[in-house]
Amino acid sequence: MTKSQPQALWIYAHPEAKSFNRDIFDAGRAELEKTHTVVTSDLYAMGFNPLLTSADFGGAADAEGTFLERWATAFETDQLLDDVRAEQQKMLEADLVVIQFPLWWYAVPAILKGWIDRVFASGFAFDIIDPETGRTRRYGDGLLVGKRALIVVTAGEHATALGPRGISGDLDSLLFGLTHGVLFYTGMSSLPLHLIEQADDMTPERATEEIERLNARLKGVYDETPTPYRTRESGDYRPARVLRDEFIPGRVDLGIHRTEG
Amino acid sequence: MTKSQPQALWIYAHPEAKSFNRDIFDAGRAELEKTHTVVTSDLYAMGFNPLLTSADFGGAADAEGTFLERWATAFETDQLLDDVRAEQQKMLEADLVVIQFPLWWYAVPAILKGWIDRVFASGFAFDIIDPETGRTRRYGDGLLVGKRALIVVTAGEHATALGPRGISGDLDSLLFGLTHGVLFYTGMSSLPLHLIEQADDMTPERATEEIERLNARLKGVYDETPTPYRTRESGDYRPARVLRDEFIPGRVDLGIHRTEG
Repeated sequence: MTKSQPQALWIYAHPEAKSFNRDIFDAGRAELEKTHTVVTSDLYAMGFNPLLTSADFGGAADAEGTFLERWATAFETDQLLDDVRAEQQKMLEADLVVIQFPLWWYAVPAILKGWIDRVFASGFAFDIIDPETGRTRRYGDGLLVGKRALIVVTAGEHATALGPRGISGDLDSLLFGLTHGVLFYTGMSSLPLHLIEQADDMTPERATEEIERLNARLKGVYDETPTPYRTRESGDYRPARVLRDEFIPGRVDLGIHRTEG
Repeated sequence: MTKSQPQALWIYAHPEAKSFNRDIFDAGRAELEKTHTVVTSDLYAMGFNPLLTSADFGGAADAEGTFLERWATAFETDQLLDDVRAEQQKMLEADLVVIQFPLWWYAVPAILKGWIDRVFASGFAFDIIDPETGRTRRYGDGLLVGKRALIVVTAGEHATALGPRGISGDLDSLLFGLTHGVLFYTGMSSLPLHLIEQADDMTPERATEEIERLNARLKGVYDETPTPYRTRESGDYRPARVLRDEFIPGRVDLGIHRTEG
């Protein structure tokens, strides 16, 4: 491990000490350690507190201003809580962020949602108004620009049920609030989802295959093309923040927010 | 309050004791109390634990079987934890469920996600295989059938940014995993979303208007038509659980899962 190595942060949100999720967490980290300094946030093992409360606002909790303004004040005046600051420091140092979780109710587990709710503070991950430039920093232009993020998600279902026209909704739409609303919004390069289907019925053979498939992906992670979401600066959106009629006319699916449709 | 009144459960997930969310929580409950017995789950005030862990599986945690099988065993053998059982009892007694939260990162706050993760246990809210009939109980045919559910969500953004072709993704898609994946899946009648926009910049005049708009909705809540999601029994889906080509051909947005397109 040398200074010149890139750094990876692997965020892991599964409760069971023995599980297929644990196996790919172990194997994936070992693969990344060949080329990265790897830092982890094993949220259950850490006992991470997922509840955003007024304690997260420090002395700014009772100040004037909106929720986001008071939160930004707390960040700017170093009043965030220690556990949040530690996670923010890991984020700042990361070149690559891997977020691994089981799909529970078509979304992230509560402990991971709470990590996002608390760590991605106003002023840290995005700015409604940048205090120096007066510029909004979000939608591809957030404060975490330059990092790339890979989501690794296991699901009990068959991939078809989570694919285009699948009964559960397609996974790209179900997790759009994460890939676009969190990762892209805060400036990160959001990579295509890595879905592992039928994770509750994993045979040893398929487990080996899935570990190899993920490790191959991790090896080539800097060669991948991030999802090309449209920025606000592109002018593709009207001032009301609605996609202009001339782009992909008539369609209303979430795929319209990618420049390649 | 008489025995013959319907019962409402209002689930509330906002951390601040003084907030616009608290005002509509108070006003909405007062409106419902005219015609309902109203029970609440004020998740932050209760200190609800949002973390699903092996403790939720009781003695079944280390048994054979998949995650969902062990969870169902824990439910069927009365081994769920007391706080979860109390919430399940409230759900069983409710005719109407109101779920109120601020939109954080385009999704529910962690404490509410954890309430869903823990309370909607396998065997309680749905069955992969019903032990009596051998029938799957989900996708409109879940175990919570007969209840209707209204989501009340506040957002900092303008409604246009959360509407069709809006930059953040339309709210119906962003919350599909909740309206379809949780409410409809477990058999509830999922009502159209109630969005309150620009909630961080609420003037007293607009606050009054919004309270009146919500109360009018609560008054007529049994006259509303639930979102007509397609059931599995309809035959609209192929065995791979993909919508048949002849229904709304070519479209891939989540609206295809409604019978009216």
